Amino acid sequence: MIRVKVVGATGYGGVGITELVLQHPEAKLVSLVAREDVGQSIAAVYPHLQGFCDLPVLAADDPRAAEPADVVFFATPDKVGMSAARTELSRGAKVIDYSGDFRFTTVEAYADYATRIGKEPTHASPDLLGRNAYGLAELHRDEIRKTDIVGNPGCFACSCILGLAPAASAQLLAPNSVICDCKTGVSGAGKKMNATYHYPARYEQMNAYKLAGHQHVCEVERELSLQAKADIKVTFTAQVVPVCRGILSTLYGTLTRPTSEADLLALYRDFFKNSPFVRVYGSTVSNIGTLNVRGTNFCNLVVSVDTRVNRLRIVAYIDNLMKGQAGSALQNMNLMFGLPETTGLNHPGIYP
Amino acid sequence: MIRVKVVGATGYGGVGITELVLQHPEAKLVSLVAREDVGQSIAAVYPHLQGFCDLPVLAADDPRAAEPADVVFFATPDKVGMSAARTELSRGAKVIDYSGDFRFTTVEAYADYATRIGKEPTHASPDLLGRNAYGLAELHRDEIRKTDIVGNPGCFACSCILGLAPAASAQLLAPNSVICDCKTGVSGAGKKMNATYHYPARYEQMNAYKLAGHQHVCEVERELSLQAKADIKVTFTAQVVPVCRGILSTLYGTLTRPTSEADLLALYRDFFKNSPFVRVYGSTVSNIGTLNVRGTNFCNLVVSVDTRVNRLRIVAYIDNLMKGQAGSALQNMNLMFGLPETTGLNHPGIYP
Amino acid sequence: MIRVKVVGATGYGGVGITELVLQHPEAKLVSLVAREDVGQSIAAVYPHLQGFCDLPVLAADDPRAAEPADVVFFATPDKVGMSAARTELSRGAKVIDYSGDFRFTTVEAYADYATRIGKEPTHASPDLLGRNAYGLAELHRDEIRKTDIVGNPGCFACSCILGLAPAASAQLLAPNSVICDCKTGVSGAGKKMNATYHYPARYEQMNAYKLAGHQHVCEVERELSLQAKADIKVTFTAQVVPVCRGILSTLYGTLTRPTSEADLLALYRDFFKNSPFVRVYGSTVSNIGTLNVRGTNFCNLVVSVDTRVNRLRIVAYIDNLMKGQAGSALQNMNLMFGLPETTGLNHPGIYP
Amino acid sequence: MIRVKVVGATGYGGVGITELVLQHPEAKLVSLVAREDVGQSIAAVYPHLQGFCDLPVLAADDPRAAEPADVVFFATPDKVGMSAARTELSRGAKVIDYSGDFRFTTVEAYADYATRIGKEPTHASPDLLGRNAYGLAELHRDEIRKTDIVGNPGCFACSCILGLAPAASAQLLAPNSVICDCKTGVSGAGKKMNATYHYPARYEQMNAYKLAGHQHVCEVERELSLQAKADIKVTFTAQVVPVCRGILSTLYGTLTRPTSEADLLALYRDFFKNSPFVRVYGSTVSNIGTLNVRGTNFCNLVVSVDTRVNRLRIVAYIDNLMKGQAGSALQNMNLMFGLPETTGLNHPGIYP
Repeated sequence: MIRVKVVGATGYGGVGITELVLQHPEAKLVSLVAREDVGQSIAAVYPHLQGFCDLPVLAADDPRAAEPADVVFFATPDKVGMSAARTELSRGAKVIDYSGDFRFTTVEAYADYATRIGKEPTHASPDLLGRNAYGLAELHRDEIRKTDIVGNPGCFACSCILGLAPAASAQLLAPNSVICDCKTGVSGAGKKMNATYHYPARYEQMNAYKLAGHQHVCEVERELSLQAKADIKVTFTAQVVPVCRGILSTLYGTLTRPTSEADLLALYRDFFKNSPFVRVYGSTVSNIGTLNVRGTNFCNLVVSVDTRVNRLRIVAYIDNLMKGQAGSALQNMNLMFGLPETTGLNHPGIYP
Repeated sequence: MIRVKVVGATGYGGVGITELVLQHPEAKLVSLVAREDVGQSIAAVYPHLQGFCDLPVLAADDPRAAEPADVVFFATPDKVGMSAARTELSRGAKVIDYSGDFRFTTVEAYADYATRIGKEPTHASPDLLGRNAYGLAELHRDEIRKTDIVGNPGCFACSCILGLAPAASAQLLAPNSVICDCKTGVSGAGKKMNATYHYPARYEQMNAYKLAGHQHVCEVERELSLQAKADIKVTFTAQVVPVCRGILSTLYGTLTRPTSEADLLALYRDFFKNSPFVRVYGSTVSNIGTLNVRGTNFCNLVVSVDTRVNRLRIVAYIDNLMKGQAGSALQNMNLMFGLPETTGLNHPGIYP
Repeated sequence: MIRVKVVGATGYGGVGITELVLQHPEAKLVSLVAREDVGQSIAAVYPHLQGFCDLPVLAADDPRAAEPADVVFFATPDKVGMSAARTELSRGAKVIDYSGDFRFTTVEAYADYATRIGKEPTHASPDLLGRNAYGLAELHRDEIRKTDIVGNPGCFACSCILGLAPAASAQLLAPNSVICDCKTGVSGAGKKMNATYHYPARYEQMNAYKLAGHQHVCEVERELSLQAKADIKVTFTAQVVPVCRGILSTLYGTLTRPTSEADLLALYRDFFKNSPFVRVYGSTVSNIGTLNVRGTNFCNLVVSVDTRVNRLRIVAYIDNLMKGQAGSALQNMNLMFGLPETTGLNHPGIYP
Repeated sequence: MIRVKVVGATGYGGVGITELVLQHPEAKLVSLVAREDVGQSIAAVYPHLQGFCDLPVLAADDPRAAEPADVVFFATPDKVGMSAARTELSRGAKVIDYSGDFRFTTVEAYADYATRIGKEPTHASPDLLGRNAYGLAELHRDEIRKTDIVGNPGCFACSCILGLAPAASAQLLAPNSVICDCKTGVSGAGKKMNATYHYPARYEQMNAYKLAGHQHVCEVERELSLQAKADIKVTFTAQVVPVCRGILSTLYGTLTRPTSEADLLALYRDFFKNSPFVRVYGSTVSNIGTLNVRGTNFCNLVVSVDTRVNRLRIVAYIDNLMKGQAGSALQNMNLMFGLPETTGLNHPGIYP
């Protein structure tokens, strides 16, 4: 059994990976660490876990938190994992970090990202950069299998990169033409209270935010540029709507050569033919939306072309807490431990 | 493997049992029958099932629907299962029916129920009555194990009976004092469209309905009277609120003798000590609600006493589509086939 | 023009009365006082007011807050209005307080209430008690017209008292038989953030709370006992559901003498014949719920009788922020200034 | 008093204009016509109107529907108003139609639109085309004042045109670069039931639809091209999210010349300086969204520029049933009758 430690266990990202590990046939939880609710049973914090897990929430410096683990999930904000990873690695654990700390492989790329989110641009463990992999399995499966440090993708980024990578890799995207219009459910902002996510302030509210720039743009541009072998710039709009789970990203780009929807569809299906969690649809599909991927690790992509203006449009749907967070993290764990990537993730969710 | 046939496969009750069987280690689907969407793949009707089940939706008289099954779930309205059960039984299948058709064991009790819901009072298979069991495992475990016909409880009834059975069995409930104030999410009304469940008509709407009498009262009164060995009458109020899944039933009764909350709590915990899906809490518990049982087969009960007027109050929470429907149905299947009753149901759901 | 000052202007109760006064033909705002957002324009805090009101939010001790007003609304928590009222009264203003501070007319009754909500039981202005009126216009119209201090009712209390007063006044309610099962939308808890009202924690959550006792019971029992000329005790359950605005209270009581629904309906209609904001329906009505009173000062009452057990059941619907708060407050202002009580309140709301 | 007749009175568009006229100081309802609920009082269909309007719902051919009116609102689907308008005009009434019937001024433009929505391309009253005006007051105020036939804009179109007209009129939009990414609440689809708007199917569902082309594109392209004096092509994406009221349209276009956000903001504010229902904000604004315009006739616009790629981005917020429908219709009525355009519309809505 893979022994699992979760740091940041009481946030949505932490409880998400906890739920998944509890159902995983080859993994088991050994310790839960967090800054809040220390000393309580996790089942007191999350009563749906009663009868399934009664581990206590430990402070980071609790001796029990040093119990041997084979993998440590850092479901923590920026700047936490980068400092704590070294200790875990030295104890022989692999590390999967949810934040931006290990999404970049050079100090320069990290500094650019950190500056954008208003953080100190220096990385605390520059020597670990380069050894890490970007945890989007569909694009970096082999690197993830070989590394012991994974930076899990941002939730918006995951939907945008999956939605545009096939077109980018076929050099179909005109540079500077790419727009990512992204809508997220409220759980994307986490468990922390915020006046704009107070129920009465949100139930009929949809709005754009961070118009000056969202931190996920860095990884989207990096990944698309890698695929395209060219410099891709993205205009990115983050919006929040009153659903709990779900991201709907509508992605636009001017085609470098006329391409029919049928050809684009074939390209996408071929690109993802070995990716069990990506489903590709043509534009005539109906009843495909966020509710149809909720609670699952799937990404649904709907492909279309506005032929009048030679523009492709991809609509991507994921569950921000699953494929956009804990689901991808578990998929990465599976890869890092030589398991089929669907292990413990192969279920359809519930409807409605 | 237990071979499973689902009749009424395209409704919420049908897709619910389909999802559960797909994850069950000892059961597999062999055929899906419905009146709508005949000829389509179930994954076309419910796209979240794509990659998990591609069985076609069959008409009831399709020869493929006669393929041998070990159990048939009738996720159908009243009057369907009572006629079709005989054929399935004669083929050697066990039958689990979601409607009122097999909740009663005498033609008189059925007639009373049928009259109340405005249906023809004659039962189509009177000879099968008496052989059937009422499918609330917590009260009828042994009978369910021995029978081949189970009438699954009504969703409201399930919450009311679980909430009041311990008090009734201890003769604590004054006759004529019992009130069940029940609130359900909209999925309780099923997949069929209805003007009052159109999103804009419902999102800020909560209301009582069927004030003249709800059909679930019959089984609540029967079961509580059985427990109490006395005639219990219930005032029942059905209300619908804008959630998808969830029942919150607040249950009141005058105590026949002064009883402290501590004593009541002990009574309840003892009553359910062998029931893995019932959790009992005292009144000081917080953050226990419908969201904490969503997607699961659990029933959370919160026990309290208004000592000033000598009245008990039990708050019961279930997922109407799970413990209130498909979950109980699978629990019954487990019992009927000699499996642990938690098989395929032992998961905590996801949060949030 | 009636000059209006609002204290606690930035909460939901404050913005509610602000919206109403802006549309009132005989009143105008002169100052807005609050503890948060001081110095900002109210339109910066509530952008929907842009172009309608640009008054600054003032600290309580700002000299501009002492500008003469004819009426002061205290949309403030317990213990604020009782201390500040005297100064406003001495300046010649009338006072309408939203909290429990002026709902009781004796120090003993206040102490009982304060103890129940865990507050210091001493009233800061005992000499003002007795001079004040309870601000439920339908029962205390004449007293409100004559006083200069009104204690606005609690939102739950408003629905319960309106729903049961006719039966109580006709001595139809058996003592100790009354149950108030109350469900509120989330706005009832105000603007202050709370982990249980964070959108993801609430969107599919319904739950009971304060099972040990809700503070509104005091005024419900007092008012019903006054009507009944007997001691009425109430079992009260507070529940919160994921709607923004709306209270649905289901009220039960054993009848002291057999009464048909028709007779009860006649009694209720007669009782409220001079109350323009109360609508009474029989149990066969459909499509009456919280959405049908949202944004308005109406209370919809649905009357029914469970003849089998001789129990009445009244379903009461209000908008907790209107009839349950700011709407009643304005209705009281109208009465105190000799205006028709519907002035500025006579609109149907919008649908859906 | 302006005598008002509403055709299609029982849909959301009909009840919306009914609510507005009931509060309008210079107008009164004389007759309500619809195909459903004929013979009932409108207050039976919409109980919130009880006490405000007891007009019966009339069939179109009921003699009482021919009672003289000064203005007739056709809150009806395509193809109804174009046939019925002539009779109303001949009786001396002005006509305001919600559908596409009078949004175009030539038979060719109409045919193009009708073809796109799968309707017969022939206009039933070609002689009336040219006499009509497009009912977006902010761009066509003078024409609306002079005509007696107005085609009210589509809800999405209203948000897109207001959001891009200033840039188009300043020739800032590169042809073929314009993208309208539009999200609507469910009420935009009207009162008619639909499986995808059944509450359980929608509450956590967001999705794109009509990817092959939405009918509102025609008017958006026509209006922007008129402003730009050039041929503007638009890629349009319609999306529906689980809110009731509200449109959030995110509008993108490549700038023909570098323009700062400050300059763009100045341009927009100047363009709308005489338009009381348009508010313009810079990108640093926060807490501006659909909830802040709900129930009102306002359009909130947030202006920003992605300088890296020289692209403008406008975020437009309206209430689809107000500025996107009944509100604009009443604004048009005011203009046609020489009243200030804000008459009966000058209120901020309620929050939350």
